[in-house]
Amino acid sequence: MRVYNFSAGPAMLPVEVLERAGAELTDWQGSGMSVIEVSHRGKAFVECAAHAAQNLRDLVRIPDNYAVLFLQGGASAQFAAVPMNLTKPGQKAAYFKTGSWSGKAISAAKAQEIGVDVIADQADSAYTTVPAPGTFTIPADAAYVHYTPNETIGGVEFSYIPDAGGAPLVADMSSTILSQPVDISRYGVIYAGAQKNMGPSGLCVAIIRRDLLGHARPTTPSVLDYAAMEASDSMLNTPPTFAIYLLGLIGDWLIESGGLEAQAERNRAKSGALYAAIDGSGFYRNPVALDARSRMNIPFTLPDPRLDASFLQGAADAGLTNLKGHRSVGGMRASIYNAMPLAGVHALTDYMADFALRHG
Amino acid sequence: MRVYNFSAGPAMLPVEVLERAGAELTDWQGSGMSVIEVSHRGKAFVECAAHAAQNLRDLVRIPDNYAVLFLQGGASAQFAAVPMNLTKPGQKAAYFKTGSWSGKAISAAKAQEIGVDVIADQADSAYTTVPAPGTFTIPADAAYVHYTPNETIGGVEFSYIPDAGGAPLVADMSSTILSQPVDISRYGVIYAGAQKNMGPSGLCVAIIRRDLLGHARPTTPSVLDYAAMEASDSMLNTPPTFAIYLLGLIGDWLIESGGLEAQAERNRAKSGALYAAIDGSGFYRNPVALDARSRMNIPFTLPDPRLDASFLQGAADAGLTNLKGHRSVGGMRASIYNAMPLAGVHALTDYMADFALRHG
Repeated sequence: MRVYNFSAGPAMLPVEVLERAGAELTDWQGSGMSVIEVSHRGKAFVECAAHAAQNLRDLVRIPDNYAVLFLQGGASAQFAAVPMNLTKPGQKAAYFKTGSWSGKAISAAKAQEIGVDVIADQADSAYTTVPAPGTFTIPADAAYVHYTPNETIGGVEFSYIPDAGGAPLVADMSSTILSQPVDISRYGVIYAGAQKNMGPSGLCVAIIRRDLLGHARPTTPSVLDYAAMEASDSMLNTPPTFAIYLLGLIGDWLIESGGLEAQAERNRAKSGALYAAIDGSGFYRNPVALDARSRMNIPFTLPDPRLDASFLQGAADAGLTNLKGHRSVGGMRASIYNAMPLAGVHALTDYMADFALRHG
Repeated sequence: MRVYNFSAGPAMLPVEVLERAGAELTDWQGSGMSVIEVSHRGKAFVECAAHAAQNLRDLVRIPDNYAVLFLQGGASAQFAAVPMNLTKPGQKAAYFKTGSWSGKAISAAKAQEIGVDVIADQADSAYTTVPAPGTFTIPADAAYVHYTPNETIGGVEFSYIPDAGGAPLVADMSSTILSQPVDISRYGVIYAGAQKNMGPSGLCVAIIRRDLLGHARPTTPSVLDYAAMEASDSMLNTPPTFAIYLLGLIGDWLIESGGLEAQAERNRAKSGALYAAIDGSGFYRNPVALDARSRMNIPFTLPDPRLDASFLQGAADAGLTNLKGHRSVGGMRASIYNAMPLAGVHALTDYMADFALRHG
């Protein structure tokens, strides 16, 4: 009996993928071994990893002048790896601050002894907005420009790609990758933890324009050195094989279901239905500016926080789980990544309407 | 149809564990979710991770003055993390060089701008020996002493714990952890990639004496900072949840099968049977000194390398896989970690005897 799981990450995955992975966990491809028991340097797994990478290239239309890397340590490791790979101490980088995750990226960059120029800080709106195009200035000496296209906790999403003014644009796409088509050519570096739209935790995908490879500081740990990882096909050390295998299966599932254009339409329909239910209720409230609302993570509050526990219990009883908001925000949060079907959102909006009727 | 898989890592896992993990991959603990879909901060997974850590504490008898951390990036990330956490630039550390992996650890330490004093280098024996006790001198100013108890590629293992002369002893136990009891009190830091005796790849366990926490360089990435990871119960960022869950199941399996004393006996019986078959054959040859032979990774050669392909094909046909030696050594290598049953070793020695008869 599966539930509709609104967890922000690790998150719901396609049940077809899980069923297949479960069924072949003792015998993969008739080998008499699990995919997690075979050598990462053997032909079978090398092909498996290449297939996962090719799926990403096909889905996201990643040009040849970009490397696709499989890394470990999640986006948090990349918060340090980006300045380690793209700057020398004393250089400067520009950061947008739009919430919790971009704030962490800024702190980690400062620890790498670079100057961090925060070119937009949405504190005045309590991080419920993104800066409008044209309202920020990129310093001429910025080694790169970093932003977080979607803040998972605040539920705030850029609806446009910021102009980086000639500097490489770096994006933490953990919570939006594979949710819609993206113009890769606008970016220098994209990184994303897998545990939302790409599979289980423990894998971080990085997409890096090749001219940015080879500039890492000598003290960069080899497993975070983009050029060293690229030169070894992401197998400088043992990669997280299970996560890469699942990424391949999820890529297959996305391709079979129409690719990112079709996925973007489904995601628009899902978030549209949920925002409409919130806005039309006169009961629930989403605090985010209309032009910055996330398609992936939708926080909402009830009129009285004393109703929260009852809302969550009733939801769990109805098979709608992990709706509790982040502790820093409170209220509720529904994360509706690719694997959440429209039927799951409808089950949630039905429950919300019923709850509002009973408590409104 | 399962095979006997002699892969050096990722490696064979207990089939009972794989069957259970496969069966509950769409519905874990009746939650209607997979273990890889739930929040790492939810009660169910927090308990799952605590259970995995407690199993390690119980099995290895880890005292309270040691922290147990779940990290990412494998032993290779620790090659950099150890000097980042235990030294400042310009300090000195002592390293044993007994083969390929200790050599990589040395290179990574030098990249962290410390002086590396190689206190024993077994190059003269082509890395088929370990230094005898008392034949090396620990510099008084060594911040720590690093060694590799078992060299996975060369098949060379220390049969004793080196005296670090008051400095913290640091060990890369990737290929021996959980294979036998170990006196933790002799160590400052133990780290080990999971993909041999503890589960799938993508998880690295670190066991750290608490007085060594809190000295990381400011530029250490947060996910490699021992104190920061300890303070967050290894959940500073999203941990590799599937690998931690499997580690818990493998700990259960080890405890049910008698703990590390019983496992050490089984491992001695397995390696003893294989070495006896090699030495008694007059056909196969293991190059390692008798007092340095690994219980986990057993390389052997045939009298004529032109027989290798035929040996490997026949072995695969008999359900004995991944016996090809590392490219840097050649010949064969049988890795016989905890999950390899004695019956698997007997199947191998039977095949080897038959092959020698036909080609001797």
